[in-house]
Amino acid sequence: MIGIIMGSDSDLAVMKAAAEILEQFKIPFELTVVSAHRTPLRMVDYATTAKERGLKVIIAGAGGAAHLPGMVASITTLPVIGVPIKSSNSIDGWDSVLSILQMPNGVPVATVALNAAKNAGILAAQILGTSDENIAAAIAHYKKEMNHEVSGKVANLKKDWNNGFDVS
Amino acid sequence: MIGIIMGSDSDLAVMKAAAEILEQFKIPFELTVVSAHRTPLRMVDYATTAKERGLKVIIAGAGGAAHLPGMVASITTLPVIGVPIKSSNSIDGWDSVLSILQMPNGVPVATVALNAAKNAGILAAQILGTSDENIAAAIAHYKKEMNHEVSGKVANLKKDWNNGFDVS
Amino acid sequence: MIGIIMGSDSDLAVMKAAAEILEQFKIPFELTVVSAHRTPLRMVDYATTAKERGLKVIIAGAGGAAHLPGMVASITTLPVIGVPIKSSNSIDGWDSVLSILQMPNGVPVATVALNAAKNAGILAAQILGTSDENIAAAIAHYKKEMNHEVSGKVANLKKDWNNGFDVS
Amino acid sequence: MIGIIMGSDSDLAVMKAAAEILEQFKIPFELTVVSAHRTPLRMVDYATTAKERGLKVIIAGAGGAAHLPGMVASITTLPVIGVPIKSSNSIDGWDSVLSILQMPNGVPVATVALNAAKNAGILAAQILGTSDENIAAAIAHYKKEMNHEVSGKVANLKKDWNNGFDVS
Amino acid sequence: MIGIIMGSDSDLAVMKAAAEILEQFKIPFELTVVSAHRTPLRMVDYATTAKERGLKVIIAGAGGAAHLPGMVASITTLPVIGVPIKSSNSIDGWDSVLSILQMPNGVPVATVALNAAKNAGILAAQILGTSDENIAAAIAHYKKEMNHEVSGKVANLKKDWNNGFDVS
Amino acid sequence: MIGIIMGSDSDLAVMKAAAEILEQFKIPFELTVVSAHRTPLRMVDYATTAKERGLKVIIAGAGGAAHLPGMVASITTLPVIGVPIKSSNSIDGWDSVLSILQMPNGVPVATVALNAAKNAGILAAQILGTSDENIAAAIAHYKKEMNHEVSGKVANLKKDWNNGFDVS
Amino acid sequence: MIGIIMGSDSDLAVMKAAAEILEQFKIPFELTVVSAHRTPLRMVDYATTAKERGLKVIIAGAGGAAHLPGMVASITTLPVIGVPIKSSNSIDGWDSVLSILQMPNGVPVATVALNAAKNAGILAAQILGTSDENIAAAIAHYKKEMNHEVSGKVANLKKDWNNGFDVS
Amino acid sequence: MIGIIMGSDSDLAVMKAAAEILEQFKIPFELTVVSAHRTPLRMVDYATTAKERGLKVIIAGAGGAAHLPGMVASITTLPVIGVPIKSSNSIDGWDSVLSILQMPNGVPVATVALNAAKNAGILAAQILGTSDENIAAAIAHYKKEMNHEVSGKVANLKKDWNNGFDVS
Repeated sequence: MIGIIMGSDSDLAVMKAAAEILEQFKIPFELTVVSAHRTPLRMVDYATTAKERGLKVIIAGAGGAAHLPGMVASITTLPVIGVPIKSSNSIDGWDSVLSILQMPNGVPVATVALNAAKNAGILAAQILGTSDENIAAAIAHYKKEMNHEVSGKVANLKKDWNNGFDVS
Repeated sequence: MIGIIMGSDSDLAVMKAAAEILEQFKIPFELTVVSAHRTPLRMVDYATTAKERGLKVIIAGAGGAAHLPGMVASITTLPVIGVPIKSSNSIDGWDSVLSILQMPNGVPVATVALNAAKNAGILAAQILGTSDENIAAAIAHYKKEMNHEVSGKVANLKKDWNNGFDVS
Repeated sequence: MIGIIMGSDSDLAVMKAAAEILEQFKIPFELTVVSAHRTPLRMVDYATTAKERGLKVIIAGAGGAAHLPGMVASITTLPVIGVPIKSSNSIDGWDSVLSILQMPNGVPVATVALNAAKNAGILAAQILGTSDENIAAAIAHYKKEMNHEVSGKVANLKKDWNNGFDVS
Repeated sequence: MIGIIMGSDSDLAVMKAAAEILEQFKIPFELTVVSAHRTPLRMVDYATTAKERGLKVIIAGAGGAAHLPGMVASITTLPVIGVPIKSSNSIDGWDSVLSILQMPNGVPVATVALNAAKNAGILAAQILGTSDENIAAAIAHYKKEMNHEVSGKVANLKKDWNNGFDVS
Repeated sequence: MIGIIMGSDSDLAVMKAAAEILEQFKIPFELTVVSAHRTPLRMVDYATTAKERGLKVIIAGAGGAAHLPGMVASITTLPVIGVPIKSSNSIDGWDSVLSILQMPNGVPVATVALNAAKNAGILAAQILGTSDENIAAAIAHYKKEMNHEVSGKVANLKKDWNNGFDVS
Repeated sequence: MIGIIMGSDSDLAVMKAAAEILEQFKIPFELTVVSAHRTPLRMVDYATTAKERGLKVIIAGAGGAAHLPGMVASITTLPVIGVPIKSSNSIDGWDSVLSILQMPNGVPVATVALNAAKNAGILAAQILGTSDENIAAAIAHYKKEMNHEVSGKVANLKKDWNNGFDVS
Repeated sequence: MIGIIMGSDSDLAVMKAAAEILEQFKIPFELTVVSAHRTPLRMVDYATTAKERGLKVIIAGAGGAAHLPGMVASITTLPVIGVPIKSSNSIDGWDSVLSILQMPNGVPVATVALNAAKNAGILAAQILGTSDENIAAAIAHYKKEMNHEVSGKVANLKKDWNNGFDVS
Repeated sequence: MIGIIMGSDSDLAVMKAAAEILEQFKIPFELTVVSAHRTPLRMVDYATTAKERGLKVIIAGAGGAAHLPGMVASITTLPVIGVPIKSSNSIDGWDSVLSILQMPNGVPVATVALNAAKNAGILAAQILGTSDENIAAAIAHYKKEMNHEVSGKVANLKKDWNNGFDVS
């Protein structure tokens, strides 16, 4: 079970991509809002109980001075994946990225790219895949699909542009 | 009473400037280490009890992904002054500045310049000075002293350099 | 009484959020334009007379090479809260932030996030709350309201998304 | 088994912190140099065979235009942890951070802070801990140790500075 | 023969400018999608066979953590021109620029400006022009045309604005 | 006589503000396109003859890798005012600013803010005003007008907002 | 007469380069400390009386939140040259540069490169040279000297390195 | 024949790496100082005659507002490789990088990493290699050497660290 949390419901438009890819991998998850700054004790509770409630990985998204991923990571022993969000109060995303990424020694946050909630979901799946061969196989399949998708685009482009590499 | 806290005892070299200026203003303070990431529950306790323990203002310094000032501000109703510290794990101070400054609506942190613990102390004094005329007078005096100090330097430079402005 | 000033009337769209939150807290304020660069002597007058006119805190917003907050702080002994504004002549807000935040030792400006006039208002209330229990209580109430608002959103999201944390 | 790789042996000074923390957690690992740019086929081989050789997680450190973590992640299905290194040819670490963090959708890299190889090791342990209760317990113990260490520093500081919070 | 490759077909809107200028110079080229992260082995193949297939120069465009140009350069001995693309997942283009430009010693990428696929095409022509006088002459002609175009604009502006320099 | 030049006619939308303010000051000027990169010899000619043709100051605007102001300054002995332009090929203006501002010792460019062609015109007037009292008086008048304009806005705002400072 | 001012006597190490080049040009100057933040009224006085005291140009250097150049420019009608200084409290010079450069419309500051006090002196000379042919000639001579100095270095390098361009 | 030029003889410490690698490839080169700002006409001459003097590629290094590579590229039809140098007057190299890289359409500069003169030399060799199989073979050999060098380091590290990948 993966926990997906975000600092504000306005982050849902970005964060639901994590949920969607987990659904595609048939990995159960829960999703809710946990605000580090408006509901700090809820955050402490969420992080404290996460493992005993059966969570394996927590995906936490936040923007601006984004403290949620790092603070959850300070409490739980579970791996925490941080999604920096370019929210309306962010300076081009730099504040979100740096306040999630630059954690001190002892408390890592597995940071993905700006707004990359989908990658957070894939990374969570990869983490489960270290002990679940079905999930590992699903990821391998997903990688092949991405590869095939490119092949389709290669074929498409070949109609309009010379391409001596993809012959046959 | 002012509370001075910092994320690590390695921040003391920077943060003691806040203590020293408060001493100069004869404003009582306490000083300790509170790590948002290594002692999150201590941080919650500190912030939760701060007002009832008689604190008026909290000065919090931290570096890198600096969550201490903002997290304390999320819990207490007291004004929190944040000191971004250019610690060894900081990217030229940008992470410290942005993760303290860019707080979301509802939870301000009064941020001062990078490493500017002295200014944090002065700002704390100014805050107390809004209801304590003795402190307000001390700040006015401090400003005059700064002004006089410049006059001394002007006089010094005048020995070596032409200066038609300060004709005395 | 809080003084709200801004470098240009084009900043009003951002800065009125400070006024609105102060109204909500029933804290009296005044609001006007004081341009450091187009009306420097007006700025000196404003800062010089601020305390004797009964102001307790000054909130100053400006964009680009934003000198208003720091210059007012150089003259008055009152705490000055600076609001960096991402104005039309600003480079993504970086100039506004740095020219307000990076004040030299001796003259702090309590800087809030880019465009965060609402937080400036809350911070001003917190400062008054250090000596006025009614205001302190109002801030405590405000924090609870923010907390409740999140609860509402949690409940809303629970309709569409699995959430094993908020069982009730 | 964790694989630790780095783009150059000059990165060893930073990267050995990952090895040391894994040793502390008694988690087996291997460590070698794999250069994306000087040994691209070695990199392909390493990534292609990683899972079948029994690796569970790969920790990859690189500086400048740091392609190693992302390229390994493009080939393997294992989770890849990226350590941006502030190497001699890096512009203050920004290039290392951005070229590891900003991976496109489909291929995440779990990025940690600049030079934070120790955190990469802890994160790898946390990932293994999702299916190994002994490791999870070791991490919980490690977090407690960090907490205790702070207590020691608190006690130390209490000798020199007033502290009304830790009354003992 | 010039090879034009890009990480995604969404880059075509930018990258076709390279194709168009090569057409103008009557230099043959091929164009396709090669994704470093979704088709890493295709990338290895493309780079490995590029020279034997008759390519002289490779133009590679990519955005975000843009590894394509550098990885191709790590395999082929041909000059590789990198085009940083400000794609939807890029932080204002900085990640694209730095992850293409900041290659380590031994493996250069000839980087052009952000989105400057046209310049990549011109640079490829200049490279061929070092051994083909017809192409060199075409470039010289192109430079003259640019010069003439400015003359036209000078004449146009002269209708509306005083200009004592271009008397004639 | 002031010379206003720009790298491209697409810069005219920004640069005409320099012309308009000079017209307001009744200072004669000429305006044309001089491209450092597309018409380098025209640039050399323009800079070489500028003084003998009676120019006193050159205002040069350019975007991206903006070499025009610095290169003109390398040739002429006249003061050169550089206007960094946020053109379509600029990375948020940083390239324009840095490539104009950061001139080496010996060859200054008087750089104004991003897109601040109006300020370039005012600065040119101030330079002429150092030896022409009529122009100096016009600038003094202009400053008073700016001041009055603010007074008008103050009066306007006073209708809607409490203002105890401007009691009249 | 040129006025050279700086925010602190610690800026003298940088700013004296302006004085030295003016001495070389035999242009009289005065030099003193004027702190915008510690002596704001002195700054107002200095700027207000500058023109009547016979100054033609003001060179103002400051670091961090560098308000001195812009504030002086807001009061005087003289051209003001701003020197951003990378002082000890500056974030790599960015704050100094932006808070001097990014002035609003109406109040230009002629900004030179970071720490480029020498260029400020040359620019001041160029401004005087617009109405003083002796100074203009001295600048022309200075430019020739720079050119000759390079010739010397060319000759020196020619001893060790092949050079087919300078055939003598 | 390759031309290596630099803006100042202080750049030689960086730029001689280009010469050394060309020597290693047995490619003839010339090396001298050409300053865009102190010797603009020398620069025009150098660029104008470069092709007729037999140069095939120009490597140009400069720091700060680095105009040399782009200006030379504006005149010659030869490919120009730009080396951004982190000189003493550069802001962490950003100015050097941006003023070389961000050339407008029509005039490319093949930019390499900050201070990467060695890579500039290799790139020049690659360009010659497009029409000279001996040089192409030398580059292929060079790439193999780099690969072997890594093998040596792998073997070295294997003495101290477990490595299950490199078995045999």
